[in-house]
Amino acid sequence: MTIQFDRIALIGIGLIGSSIAHDVKRLGIAKEVVISTRSADTLKRAEELGLGDRYLQSAAEAVKDADLVIVSVPVGASGSVAKEIAATLMPGAIVTDVGSTKASVIAQMQPHIPEGVHFIPGHPLAGTEKSGPDAGFAGLFEQRWCIFTPVTGTDPAALAKLRHFWEALGARVDEMDPQHHDKVLAIVSHLPHIIAYNIVGTADDLEAVTESEVIKYSASGFRDFTRLAASDPTMWRDVCLHNKDAILEMLSRFSEDLAYLQRAIRWGEGDKLFELFTRTRAIRRSIIQAGQDVDAPDFGRHHGQEPKKS
Amino acid sequence: MTIQFDRIALIGIGLIGSSIAHDVKRLGIAKEVVISTRSADTLKRAEELGLGDRYLQSAAEAVKDADLVIVSVPVGASGSVAKEIAATLMPGAIVTDVGSTKASVIAQMQPHIPEGVHFIPGHPLAGTEKSGPDAGFAGLFEQRWCIFTPVTGTDPAALAKLRHFWEALGARVDEMDPQHHDKVLAIVSHLPHIIAYNIVGTADDLEAVTESEVIKYSASGFRDFTRLAASDPTMWRDVCLHNKDAILEMLSRFSEDLAYLQRAIRWGEGDKLFELFTRTRAIRRSIIQAGQDVDAPDFGRHHGQEPKKS
Repeated sequence: MTIQFDRIALIGIGLIGSSIAHDVKRLGIAKEVVISTRSADTLKRAEELGLGDRYLQSAAEAVKDADLVIVSVPVGASGSVAKEIAATLMPGAIVTDVGSTKASVIAQMQPHIPEGVHFIPGHPLAGTEKSGPDAGFAGLFEQRWCIFTPVTGTDPAALAKLRHFWEALGARVDEMDPQHHDKVLAIVSHLPHIIAYNIVGTADDLEAVTESEVIKYSASGFRDFTRLAASDPTMWRDVCLHNKDAILEMLSRFSEDLAYLQRAIRWGEGDKLFELFTRTRAIRRSIIQAGQDVDAPDFGRHHGQEPKKS
Repeated sequence: MTIQFDRIALIGIGLIGSSIAHDVKRLGIAKEVVISTRSADTLKRAEELGLGDRYLQSAAEAVKDADLVIVSVPVGASGSVAKEIAATLMPGAIVTDVGSTKASVIAQMQPHIPEGVHFIPGHPLAGTEKSGPDAGFAGLFEQRWCIFTPVTGTDPAALAKLRHFWEALGARVDEMDPQHHDKVLAIVSHLPHIIAYNIVGTADDLEAVTESEVIKYSASGFRDFTRLAASDPTMWRDVCLHNKDAILEMLSRFSEDLAYLQRAIRWGEGDKLFELFTRTRAIRRSIIQAGQDVDAPDFGRHHGQEPKKS
């Protein structure tokens, strides 16, 4: 791999920031990686993990002379980070982010970005339910999509350079407008997380069924939801607050559909249930065919058991 | 393993029936295994897979001289199977089932079971999203729970014998009354499946977001739900119709909680969101500690990637 940047500044070093750090180091993409995060403890941990070359609490200091700045913070903090780094950004630098909402991030960051700096909002669709600098690993972005939502007048050369960067990390790059991104993500990511948090909360609140029963018998379906519901609370609070309109629309559709299903159950309309339960199977097959999930039963949890066939 | 039964009759040979067949053969639990299913094609497939010793379309024929009969059919078919086998059941035989609802199965089957035959309703909490005789595998029940919901006057010796059988397959056995079983399963299994089917249906119906976008970007959360939503439609239609009251109660609680969450999103009440999103993390940890799910991030989908840490 050839060096693509002289100095990359990573602002925020959670799951996404630290996974980028692992890849940049492994692939030799930058001459120098500067890491910045506001928490002294997290910064210390990043240093212990050897994620970068220099470690600074001040984001303003960290971005100095960086030709690529990647902001990986909860979306609610995007505005304050942009304000903090504005004065020290190098002319010609690319500033990008990894936030799960795009219209809000653009509204928060763009006003602070100086002339001559290339602001390219981005969102790699990758992650796990773990968070913090210890959660990152090399290869997280392989086969995953990274969506750019470029603002008007974006320099094509800067765009190509950032695309090249994500492709080096194994990602495939797509472009769309921020409003469309926010709608798409509301259904493929935000709604699933909210529903997962909600069902786990409902189970936690029951009186007739104990929490220990919920845990003991969780393998019959419930446990699947607990993974998403174990995701970073700060990140997801911010997503809910910053993609409100699209999320409320999807929630309203979901609830409407659920009322239809509930009514079919109440009135014993088996044909309506069967129709839906059949239709949804096809989507799973398409996802597997598209290489976006594993084909192994139960996400491969039964590893090493299938071969025991008699 | 010692022989526990002279002849086991497996009525129904889907995922659960065929997994039992694999284990019984592997462990040498029975002198003979007789397999019966109404579909000639499925029966032929079971024979090709070598799942048993004899293959019969008639359930009545199959249960003759069997000292253990395991009914593994969609719960809506339990009554007709019980009626069909009633006259040919051997005195002293144990008849059990694997159905996901228990009050309804008891109501359907018990009236048909003759004096002197031990009817013990059971439910192994195990499975994958796959169905049919090809989906079964040895070891499916290892570390999983099997719940008995014994009826009044059950013979303790027969109960102990059936418990011993499931323990031989690696399962842990619990007992509870059928009404409580149906409430517990409504939250840990039925509600999760219904919610998963529903969200996949909602996504499938959108106009502003294309199906190909839903599939492409599904790794950001949505794909987790598609696994449960790929489960057998007949089985799940029957579960919905046969555990109606408990499911409707759980759906109503879920919707109430979701309305609270939706309102918090609309009014920007971040503290309420953060409180829920934090509380749900603890449940995931308890499930992993209880050995009911894997600890690997993302259900271990990133197999072989974590070690690449730089």
